[in-house]
Amino acid sequence: MLKMDNSEIWKDCIGAISNLIEEADFEIDGKGIRMKAMDPSHVALVDFRLSSKAFSVYDVEDTVKLGLDLTEMDKVMSRAKKNDESAIGYIEEENRLKIEFKGTSTRRFSLPLLDLEDEDLPDPDLDFTASAKIAAGVINDGLKDAALVGDNVRFELLEGKFLMKIESDTGSAELELSEDDEALESIDVDNPSRAMYNIGYLEDMFKAASSNDIVEIKHGQDLPIQIIFEIAEGNGHLKFLLAPRVETE
Amino acid sequence: MLKMDNSEIWKDCIGAISNLIEEADFEIDGKGIRMKAMDPSHVALVDFRLSSKAFSVYDVEDTVKLGLDLTEMDKVMSRAKKNDESAIGYIEEENRLKIEFKGTSTRRFSLPLLDLEDEDLPDPDLDFTASAKIAAGVINDGLKDAALVGDNVRFELLEGKFLMKIESDTGSAELELSEDDEALESIDVDNPSRAMYNIGYLEDMFKAASSNDIVEIKHGQDLPIQIIFEIAEGNGHLKFLLAPRVETE
Amino acid sequence: MLKMDNSEIWKDCIGAISNLIEEADFEIDGKGIRMKAMDPSHVALVDFRLSSKAFSVYDVEDTVKLGLDLTEMDKVMSRAKKNDESAIGYIEEENRLKIEFKGTSTRRFSLPLLDLEDEDLPDPDLDFTASAKIAAGVINDGLKDAALVGDNVRFELLEGKFLMKIESDTGSAELELSEDDEALESIDVDNPSRAMYNIGYLEDMFKAASSNDIVEIKHGQDLPIQIIFEIAEGNGHLKFLLAPRVETE
Repeated sequence: MLKMDNSEIWKDCIGAISNLIEEADFEIDGKGIRMKAMDPSHVALVDFRLSSKAFSVYDVEDTVKLGLDLTEMDKVMSRAKKNDESAIGYIEEENRLKIEFKGTSTRRFSLPLLDLEDEDLPDPDLDFTASAKIAAGVINDGLKDAALVGDNVRFELLEGKFLMKIESDTGSAELELSEDDEALESIDVDNPSRAMYNIGYLEDMFKAASSNDIVEIKHGQDLPIQIIFEIAEGNGHLKFLLAPRVETE
Repeated sequence: MLKMDNSEIWKDCIGAISNLIEEADFEIDGKGIRMKAMDPSHVALVDFRLSSKAFSVYDVEDTVKLGLDLTEMDKVMSRAKKNDESAIGYIEEENRLKIEFKGTSTRRFSLPLLDLEDEDLPDPDLDFTASAKIAAGVINDGLKDAALVGDNVRFELLEGKFLMKIESDTGSAELELSEDDEALESIDVDNPSRAMYNIGYLEDMFKAASSNDIVEIKHGQDLPIQIIFEIAEGNGHLKFLLAPRVETE
Repeated sequence: MLKMDNSEIWKDCIGAISNLIEEADFEIDGKGIRMKAMDPSHVALVDFRLSSKAFSVYDVEDTVKLGLDLTEMDKVMSRAKKNDESAIGYIEEENRLKIEFKGTSTRRFSLPLLDLEDEDLPDPDLDFTASAKIAAGVINDGLKDAALVGDNVRFELLEGKFLMKIESDTGSAELELSEDDEALESIDVDNPSRAMYNIGYLEDMFKAASSNDIVEIKHGQDLPIQIIFEIAEGNGHLKFLLAPRVETE
């Protein structure tokens, strides 16, 4: 049985993951919860961890692997109210996940567990040459801007400068952050890099974040982009790795 | 001519009724307004009363029966603004209902009256064995939870406990209120009872209520459920009677 | 290069115009910006002016004519945030309009310019016999009320009284403002007048206004209606002229 004082972290994380991945195994042991999975078209890799410290009660003895339908899980988590205390449990005999929200009333849900095949996940060793910490809301704006113009946006990390760019026959859009801008918390560039990514995937990933959340980006020339959200006040993370698009120009 | 200081009661009641019933006769006499009708599939019975005391001006001499298209009436009532004073009148020669909202401007609507056939309404004599008073918002939550899982939800009224339950292959949902919960104002159980009802109908009925409104429920084993909203500070009511679904398990 | 301290005026005006007109030439010279165009079905004439005084920086030497796709322009302007400083520029060699929003980040857009044919615009000389200044929100309400009943609404300007009326088999709606109503800032009637207009066109035009904005209306018996929004604190206007519908009753 796991208990959290509020259910927002679950809600946001499952919400973002479920846009990319339909079903996945969650591994739960004494230290915390881990999930790693690829989206069906093998473009995005999701890595989710939540330490036992994020829970007010964490009572796990054995290691279990729970196969979850994330769409159904998201629907249930979306029913949580802001200050509900949430609890999650697992009853082996029933092969079901139990979810409880306690607030004005006590509400209990159960979801059948899935028996999923083990996936062979890539563990790419990437030489990122630049990184930045940025307010998530700004990147969200850049994605919406770019969506007016086309499907793929280019990220550029330059000396003291972060850029998102897109150009097509119907127009162009560009977002720039420089070191003076408060929304760019830090930028660290060994080698300037640019690479292009699908806007739809990025929009799904950024659903995990509130505008003021700081997201970390790791980047390299034509490499996949790594996007890291710290969650639960540092007691967990949600990491995405998204393959680049080949520029056809 | 009838006048109300605000138009919210009309708006909420007509809104809830119009989801279930398309057209109905409203009987208006010196004491107030009455409407009783069944939905087209004869699953739900609606009983609406509003006393003359709910109106700041109530000027009715004869008894009249006005046949209204509730969908059209709802559209007009939805145009009222929060603090508009509303007036309703009837001009026999024109065979029209007149509605007036007075606020920033004066707005007048008219709707043609319908000539409806008399309906033979059942007047079931039900031996309810349990009743409860509950915050409407909680039941609304329970209905939305249950809708994730299926079409019908079971109400259970037990000693000191109110439950809404649903279970299917895709999962389960359950809402529980006990006497300690503030949202359960009172519960009175002679005999524990359970019965199952259609979620869609219940959702339509609860559109009449704000979250904090207290709704009264009367219940019995496999009986129809009676749902009673007091309106206009006790000067009227909106009562629904909904037939149970037979449990097929 | 033109700069404004906030981008709301652009956003609202382009938003309202783009509902009526898809593409139009904007003339820009040392004094300001002008645009005049008819909608494709030649029912509405739009006249937009914005003085150089509305801009914090206004740096225009030659007269240029820029052909814009207003739908695309609207999409870009809608991306501006409330307190963004906006700048618009034009680079002749590239044949593109440049738009920049500066706030939390710096965002730049470009749109290709269109080569539009000159339109022969009517310049009707109309003998309006009545005029009124009215809170835009009230007329918006009247339009939404009227839309419940039909497609065309009649405006009547009488001695001390403003009316919007519609009647059909399905009902009627009427909005009345008299001199006592605060929302009627002024009314000036030489000859009482009535004429009928399409509700959809009027709704599009009123998208330019906030509820509390005062709009000026010029009117005459069966004449087109002129609707005048002052913008940029008197440093510009958005004028619409809408042809009447012939009453078929």
